[in-house]
Amino acid sequence: MDVKAQALQAHRAWQGKIEIVPRMKIETAQDLSLAYTPGVAEPCLAIRDNPDESYALTRRWNLVAVVTDGTAVLGLGDIGPEAGMPVMEGKCCLFKAFANVDAFPLCIRSKDVDEIVHTLSLLAGSFGGINLEDIAAPRCFEIERKLKAALDIPVFHDDQHGTAVVAAAALINALRLTERTPEKTRIVISGAGAAGISLARHFLSLGVRDIILCDKCGILCRGMAGLNPAQAAIAGATNPAQKTGTLADALRGADVFFGVSAPNLVTPEMVASMAERPLVFPMANPVPEISPQDAKRGGAYVVGTGRSDYPNQINNVLAFPGIFRGALDVRARDINEAMKAAASQAIAALVSPKELSPEYILPPAFDKRVGPAVAAAVAKAARESGVARL
Amino acid sequence: MDVKAQALQAHRAWQGKIEIVPRMKIETAQDLSLAYTPGVAEPCLAIRDNPDESYALTRRWNLVAVVTDGTAVLGLGDIGPEAGMPVMEGKCCLFKAFANVDAFPLCIRSKDVDEIVHTLSLLAGSFGGINLEDIAAPRCFEIERKLKAALDIPVFHDDQHGTAVVAAAALINALRLTERTPEKTRIVISGAGAAGISLARHFLSLGVRDIILCDKCGILCRGMAGLNPAQAAIAGATNPAQKTGTLADALRGADVFFGVSAPNLVTPEMVASMAERPLVFPMANPVPEISPQDAKRGGAYVVGTGRSDYPNQINNVLAFPGIFRGALDVRARDINEAMKAAASQAIAALVSPKELSPEYILPPAFDKRVGPAVAAAVAKAARESGVARL
Repeated sequence: MDVKAQALQAHRAWQGKIEIVPRMKIETAQDLSLAYTPGVAEPCLAIRDNPDESYALTRRWNLVAVVTDGTAVLGLGDIGPEAGMPVMEGKCCLFKAFANVDAFPLCIRSKDVDEIVHTLSLLAGSFGGINLEDIAAPRCFEIERKLKAALDIPVFHDDQHGTAVVAAAALINALRLTERTPEKTRIVISGAGAAGISLARHFLSLGVRDIILCDKCGILCRGMAGLNPAQAAIAGATNPAQKTGTLADALRGADVFFGVSAPNLVTPEMVASMAERPLVFPMANPVPEISPQDAKRGGAYVVGTGRSDYPNQINNVLAFPGIFRGALDVRARDINEAMKAAASQAIAALVSPKELSPEYILPPAFDKRVGPAVAAAVAKAARESGVARL
Repeated sequence: MDVKAQALQAHRAWQGKIEIVPRMKIETAQDLSLAYTPGVAEPCLAIRDNPDESYALTRRWNLVAVVTDGTAVLGLGDIGPEAGMPVMEGKCCLFKAFANVDAFPLCIRSKDVDEIVHTLSLLAGSFGGINLEDIAAPRCFEIERKLKAALDIPVFHDDQHGTAVVAAAALINALRLTERTPEKTRIVISGAGAAGISLARHFLSLGVRDIILCDKCGILCRGMAGLNPAQAAIAGATNPAQKTGTLADALRGADVFFGVSAPNLVTPEMVASMAERPLVFPMANPVPEISPQDAKRGGAYVVGTGRSDYPNQINNVLAFPGIFRGALDVRARDINEAMKAAASQAIAALVSPKELSPEYILPPAFDKRVGPAVAAAVAKAARESGVARL
């Protein structure tokens, strides 16, 4: 049985991947009188008198909403909110398994930015943080921006930032391995959706100066027609030489390729046209922009994909559980650039100089050091950047 | 240490009363590939193609939202949404402990009927049912009515219907014990809020004809000034003789008293003025309308309260877990009058004729037969009334 049939069968057997359980026994009238009436009146009054007590007396301190509108689920597109739920439940399982974060899935029957923002604002008192998931660009940018402005709990769009944090960790170690500096590195990103734009932003914050984004219409440059506001903004901040042309044109002489676009857009010849010892990260899932074999054939020195069956998997499970763990631990008001950069550095630092090789630039998904290391680095960055409340 | 201090300390130690756990292990790349990518795409596509599959492939089939706006929490009044959360979490624990229902607490930062209804409509695809809780009257009536009209998942306001279902069970057995028939029984209800109005409606559906509601202004009658629409409607359906006067006037000659109002409104003399072998249910919590001792001194034959430290506790934990269990089991579109009446009968039937006594008219909260018996009766009534989808 292939993985598809097996997964469907497993989902039928599980009857849902999450479950909500009491943290205390409810077996006697005495148990009831403490956890429910009449005892429960006391914590209620304590929170009424000091709303911050909701973090001490309810599960809020550890609780993250995993929210989608179902418009960009995996590579499946707009399949509707209910159909996105298996991904959201899966994500909630990863939050618990990798960082002991309690996460609850909410799918919203709306595609209206303000309606989604308003809905989550009304619910924000129930949660300690919000993880946005599988929401189509450019709405995802607007929703995240407006939510961050409206709320004092951390908001994080994993498809943008989780991927970027791990890709940045891979970049840090690949540059280290090939003795490049960010300042002198030329990066080409294929895909100018949520993930591609977020990659570009994170790489800029690492000190990379020469970044080119490409989408279906070719190289993004200033004043190009048909860009959404987020694309126009990143086009203005990248492509310093204002090149035009195709992805193939962009790759000529480039040091690094990151793909968050579509299968089979890159050929071995295009890799061969890149700089010496090129770093190639075709992350389209499940079929990458170029297969690792073909990338190697073209001369790639390091190859990383989104897949677990090849070396150097760019897996955002390395990032989001620890990022929220760290943010929740210090009751951060926000997840800011400093915290994300700290997460990238923490992930990269888990590969020692001795271990570092073209086949091993990232710790594996199940490396138990990752979550705690990321959480500690994120908490420290939150404190240093003034968004921690503890 | 008294129960208040003990409860506050316990809540601090628990750090939240619920937790969200995966239903499968996440320990290997293989586990990830089934529960998350790439396997999870299959259940997503199955739900896209047939939305009903969300009940088979996610936890929706067993998942209830416990929702409040924090405006009528316990007897504490409008303490705000966050401050209501300890009660909601407690309720979620009871759902799981008594009927294996997964329940998740949502507190909404709004007091606007349409905004609350709209918010829950947008989230309805994430849940199999909605339990409204601690929402002030008369908004609770409007919210429930509009939600029931908008959604095809069951909606239930426990403060109204849970209390009424258990009170009706108590009434059924108390009438049986004293060989009265509903048709010839005179009932006085003190309190014309959500609970009082719901009691009156349920008793009417049991065949009781002579019901009088009283509130602070005295006996409710047609055309009375200052009634909200729900009160005006119930005033029109009760008090057939159109009596006026005080609670004391109403009680003279009455067979049954139900109190969902305030402490110490009833005296032993008022009980003494009732019919022979009066049935007295002062359910205000934690201090009832009359103490069981005083009620007995006034001649009460049966006394039941909301408290666990006296006989005959009217505890809605006897009702709501089994009601939702039954509704979810047959994927009911609604929780209708027939299902609630069936729940009352099922609870009452768990006290055998041999056991029935003035001190024992209801099964105790922890009687393990209650949840399954209520669920079975509710599921059967759902099928017979045409709202079951399984």
